[in-house]
Amino acid sequence: MSVKGLKVAVVGATGAVGHELLLSLKKRNFPVNDLVLFASSRSEGKKVEWGGKTYSCQVLRKGCFDGVDLAFFDASDAISKEWVPQAAESGAWVVDNSAAFRMEKDIPLVVPEVNGSLVGAKLKSLKQVQPRDRIFTGPNCSAAPLSVALKPIRDLWGIRRVVVSTYQSTSGAGTLAMAELTDQTQAVLNGSPARSSIFPHRIAFNCIPHIGGFKEDGYTGEEHKIVEETQKMLDLPDLKISVTAVRVPTLSCHALTVNVECEKQVNPDHLREVFSKSAGVILQDRPQDKIYPMGMTFEGDPVEGASGNDAVYIGRIRRDPTLGSGLNLWIVADNLRKGAALNAIQVAEVLLKAIH
Amino acid sequence: MSVKGLKVAVVGATGAVGHELLLSLKKRNFPVNDLVLFASSRSEGKKVEWGGKTYSCQVLRKGCFDGVDLAFFDASDAISKEWVPQAAESGAWVVDNSAAFRMEKDIPLVVPEVNGSLVGAKLKSLKQVQPRDRIFTGPNCSAAPLSVALKPIRDLWGIRRVVVSTYQSTSGAGTLAMAELTDQTQAVLNGSPARSSIFPHRIAFNCIPHIGGFKEDGYTGEEHKIVEETQKMLDLPDLKISVTAVRVPTLSCHALTVNVECEKQVNPDHLREVFSKSAGVILQDRPQDKIYPMGMTFEGDPVEGASGNDAVYIGRIRRDPTLGSGLNLWIVADNLRKGAALNAIQVAEVLLKAIH
Repeated sequence: MSVKGLKVAVVGATGAVGHELLLSLKKRNFPVNDLVLFASSRSEGKKVEWGGKTYSCQVLRKGCFDGVDLAFFDASDAISKEWVPQAAESGAWVVDNSAAFRMEKDIPLVVPEVNGSLVGAKLKSLKQVQPRDRIFTGPNCSAAPLSVALKPIRDLWGIRRVVVSTYQSTSGAGTLAMAELTDQTQAVLNGSPARSSIFPHRIAFNCIPHIGGFKEDGYTGEEHKIVEETQKMLDLPDLKISVTAVRVPTLSCHALTVNVECEKQVNPDHLREVFSKSAGVILQDRPQDKIYPMGMTFEGDPVEGASGNDAVYIGRIRRDPTLGSGLNLWIVADNLRKGAALNAIQVAEVLLKAIH
Repeated sequence: MSVKGLKVAVVGATGAVGHELLLSLKKRNFPVNDLVLFASSRSEGKKVEWGGKTYSCQVLRKGCFDGVDLAFFDASDAISKEWVPQAAESGAWVVDNSAAFRMEKDIPLVVPEVNGSLVGAKLKSLKQVQPRDRIFTGPNCSAAPLSVALKPIRDLWGIRRVVVSTYQSTSGAGTLAMAELTDQTQAVLNGSPARSSIFPHRIAFNCIPHIGGFKEDGYTGEEHKIVEETQKMLDLPDLKISVTAVRVPTLSCHALTVNVECEKQVNPDHLREVFSKSAGVILQDRPQDKIYPMGMTFEGDPVEGASGNDAVYIGRIRRDPTLGSGLNLWIVADNLRKGAALNAIQVAEVLLKAIH
């Protein structure tokens, strides 16, 4: 394929991540020549403006990836499971944001700042490109910022154990979930009755410690993903990570408290220096001046919110005195950007470089 | 003083905690004969209905505690620092909810389910009651539920280390803070501009990792309180507790993720059994049926929210596979009830029993 003229498919084009992906493709000047947008039958025929042209959403059907150079999947695991192999079989490179293939041993799970070199290494190692070799995946929206924050810590001091609690926004559950939060909130403010259909309970002014289905061990699917995907990306398959994932009544951005036990003596000042120079990271760590990461701030607030921005925001870095060597951190990132759409595009950019 | 006819003072009667305290005094049929309500000059003369009578709020002045048997303080640290000693000097027993005296070695910090026996033991040990002996304190609104949850774990298996992340509601910052959340939220929903005056940043649909002032070590006053007060109540002055305290956009209840490393082998089923029989605890731990603690649920939801209720709600109890012996838990409690007003009344009840 030519970098000058990619035919790009977006599966899940009308979803929260798909929407961000289209915005970011434009913003990053991604070399799109032609665009094919796929959505569920509910959105078939829906018009989407992009780059001065109007595109009509199609449903997935046999042969629909013919001629496509690159396909982004931002739909359900079930859709990816069925259609990603067909896209790859058609000759398209695929960046899949679902969980369907992330944990497959031979398929790279990539956050470019963490393990982007895997992409080139994989392509170099192939004598012949098989369809399955065309599949790359991006991680869970909490695992992405977590791995970005942990990577320099791993490199500097080694990691023994991590305890994570998440503060995840409704946008992680899609646009309908965001609407459920705002509708419920308005109802509560009006004193009107309201109910939940997307979330298992009330989300307005409430926290729900339940994201994904519960497994036999008492952990949720989301908690398992955060553990296993972070292990895979950091290339530390036995890294100890303990997670509690919680949905909070926010519209955008996931936040995480991260407690890290290290092997060697930590130095918070040195870590701040490293983060301040790290690609994809914005350090916001002057708590005395009320500067620390947050999802959304009002206009005029000197602190930039992470929402609608690309970076992983890191702050509140402090020594944990209960450990021989450890740290506490607070991380915020836009789950639709670095947690999904942006990361997928960054993976595709690395891929394009590796191909040419 | 006679249990049949207590003259009870409430300092901070018009605040969020004072309001709950008056409700709970009534609900628990506390033996009030006469009531004296104190508030700031802003609320001087404000009428408050209680038990069929109308009381007028007064400002604190010299001699205002004369004849008072029992005084509840639900105001600022500064108010308590100045007026608690005067109330005790006047011969009143005092239950202070502020942080002013909590960490004084000779003054008990009490959550009755955790260390209620201290009250009787202290009174028995005294040859003569000095004014300072009349002062008892209740803990920080996150330390209260945390200590209730940790006490049985300490007793069963010993505790080596605890990692806590909090999800604290705006009610912990008072009624004006709750109004700031609802006003801002309505403005955001309307697309109108809004600003913060109570919170350091936007709170509508946002999380702020900043409760209390920042200390030199990078931790906040709130984080220090949770650590030190829990250590004091559990009588484990060296217990390792690492905390990140976060304000979330909820109206009522504080939630906590709690990761506990134990000395002996843990057994989640046994702990569930113990909690199901513990005074002041409601176990909500059937995640497969979507039953776990939350602050607020809608009418008709089979799960009872903690808001407006007295107990500490505990769930999501599960083994932490990253520790030789450890657990994760999720705790929710109404910070105005068990975290403040209810606990103060329970302390007073223990005190009355010990006196008679």
